[in-house]
Amino acid sequence: VRLQELGEFGLIDRIAQRVLPQGRVRIGIGDDAAAIVPGNGMQSLISTDMLVEGVHFDLNYTELGQLGRKALAVNLSDIAAMGGIPRHILLGLAIPKGMQVEKMDAFMDGLFSMASEFDVSLIGGDTCASPSGFVISLTIIGEQLPEKVIPRSGASPGDKLLVTGELGYSALGLHLLQQGERSGKGVMRHLDPMPRVREGVALAETGVVTAMIDVSDGLLADLEHILSNSGVGALVELDAIPLSAKFKEIAGALSLDPYELALTGGEDYELLFTVAPDRLTSAMTALSSCGASSAVIGTIVGGNSLKVVAADGIEYHPKVLGYNHFASHD
Amino acid sequence: VRLQELGEFGLIDRIAQRVLPQGRVRIGIGDDAAAIVPGNGMQSLISTDMLVEGVHFDLNYTELGQLGRKALAVNLSDIAAMGGIPRHILLGLAIPKGMQVEKMDAFMDGLFSMASEFDVSLIGGDTCASPSGFVISLTIIGEQLPEKVIPRSGASPGDKLLVTGELGYSALGLHLLQQGERSGKGVMRHLDPMPRVREGVALAETGVVTAMIDVSDGLLADLEHILSNSGVGALVELDAIPLSAKFKEIAGALSLDPYELALTGGEDYELLFTVAPDRLTSAMTALSSCGASSAVIGTIVGGNSLKVVAADGIEYHPKVLGYNHFASHD
Repeated sequence: VRLQELGEFGLIDRIAQRVLPQGRVRIGIGDDAAAIVPGNGMQSLISTDMLVEGVHFDLNYTELGQLGRKALAVNLSDIAAMGGIPRHILLGLAIPKGMQVEKMDAFMDGLFSMASEFDVSLIGGDTCASPSGFVISLTIIGEQLPEKVIPRSGASPGDKLLVTGELGYSALGLHLLQQGERSGKGVMRHLDPMPRVREGVALAETGVVTAMIDVSDGLLADLEHILSNSGVGALVELDAIPLSAKFKEIAGALSLDPYELALTGGEDYELLFTVAPDRLTSAMTALSSCGASSAVIGTIVGGNSLKVVAADGIEYHPKVLGYNHFASHD
Repeated sequence: VRLQELGEFGLIDRIAQRVLPQGRVRIGIGDDAAAIVPGNGMQSLISTDMLVEGVHFDLNYTELGQLGRKALAVNLSDIAAMGGIPRHILLGLAIPKGMQVEKMDAFMDGLFSMASEFDVSLIGGDTCASPSGFVISLTIIGEQLPEKVIPRSGASPGDKLLVTGELGYSALGLHLLQQGERSGKGVMRHLDPMPRVREGVALAETGVVTAMIDVSDGLLADLEHILSNSGVGALVELDAIPLSAKFKEIAGALSLDPYELALTGGEDYELLFTVAPDRLTSAMTALSSCGASSAVIGTIVGGNSLKVVAADGIEYHPKVLGYNHFASHD
């Protein structure tokens, strides 16, 4: 079945049937706007992301189910990076007219599977035809108590810099996908990343995290955001970057610099954050109670410069900091 | 200057410089998510719209300043249709890489001019390169007290059906634009519509409106949404549709059916709503205090059918109800 036959309102009904407004959603899909009741004393956290075919994803190697999951994962990661509890999403879709309804169903299946993992409800959206590729716009609403919200701007000199999990696998996976690989850890990390929502909330509950961001554009590019928002600099220890032996081995076999992948690759969706040195245990314990590893990878310093130094004291200079839309390289 | 030279973060900075987080915006542009304080006892009203080049707008005859205004107007109209007070917006942009920064500035100028007319603040967004046309995604957050929110679902048999302003000029304007006209009331109504925000809030304050929607897809298509959400039917009196003599004259000269334009044309952004007959005065007075005219155009009835009847009692059948994305006609 093609979307033409179903029509715009047929498609919306098909999606709306899968969602019932409940709890604090007083009006859901099918009105001019959704109406929700904010949590008592909570700040609302809101973020929006666009995913454009040919820029953010390639349907030659991305299944629509994975794309649905990832579109939401990217959004959830933004709320996680504030220490927020994700609640609701709105979905905008510009859909190529010839697309099969079955493909849209697969996309929605993926999106709903990720939504149910994090108890997030779809409350509205917009659909239209696209004259060229598939474009996805997702807006997420989360919430958190004001004193627990973690901005990018609170890092102070002396704070330790930490990151969850491992870095670089997503960039490695993208490389492998472009070479024809269709499976393996890197490929799956790139196609189906898991946002650190529980970890973000656990860190917010500790009250000790001074600044946080998720690693989407690349560790150094995202760290730069913390530094500029906080008005500080940082010293990153290259050898402290969490890279597994297996990761280094695969990267080496492909003649890729594992550190370059980890520092500038992006799309890891790990959490990068800062904590005063005497509060380290509190943050790391909160993460391990979620089953997440974390590593101290550097220190916040005065000034505004970002330096990456290897164990031998030699400064490391990556070719680019991270992904930049509109840059001539892409 | 082309966007490549400015870069993604240069563009974001350029936009962010024009907005300072203040009042209930605790964190604005430049973090993982915006943080806002919901109004006391208010429900949050949230809606999202996509505008795609070649589908919703044509840059051959739409100036970017007008497009910026209209992108926001469409969103504001959704909040108006709930009786809500618009507060904040998030803006997603997929921008053709060759686009001049001056064009983006013109777009943002237009958007900010509309934002300041309705005291709405930009709190976040996302920008990326587009491999084809310009795509705009706007999300709006408004609010209203729960008892004042006006859904589509509250119409009852016996209620009167009303509409603000005049209908059909936007569809007429689109027709004229496609024929090469670049000015005049219809053209301006199409390119630079004004959302009925103050009117929507004034109606919400009366507490007498049982259902409401804005006329975006076409009067009959939008009325169908009220009918299906409320589980009722309607009888529309063709001769009561507010059409000016001038409008009929221009449509006639172009061999267009003025009623077809008014009933199915769409993009008028007038408010269509229902009120119990003994509360009519209250609603119409609220509107005239905003300087808006309104007309009773029909009655809600039992059942689920929508009939449009002329003064001579003959039923009127439009060719299509309204605009349908994915339909084969577009």
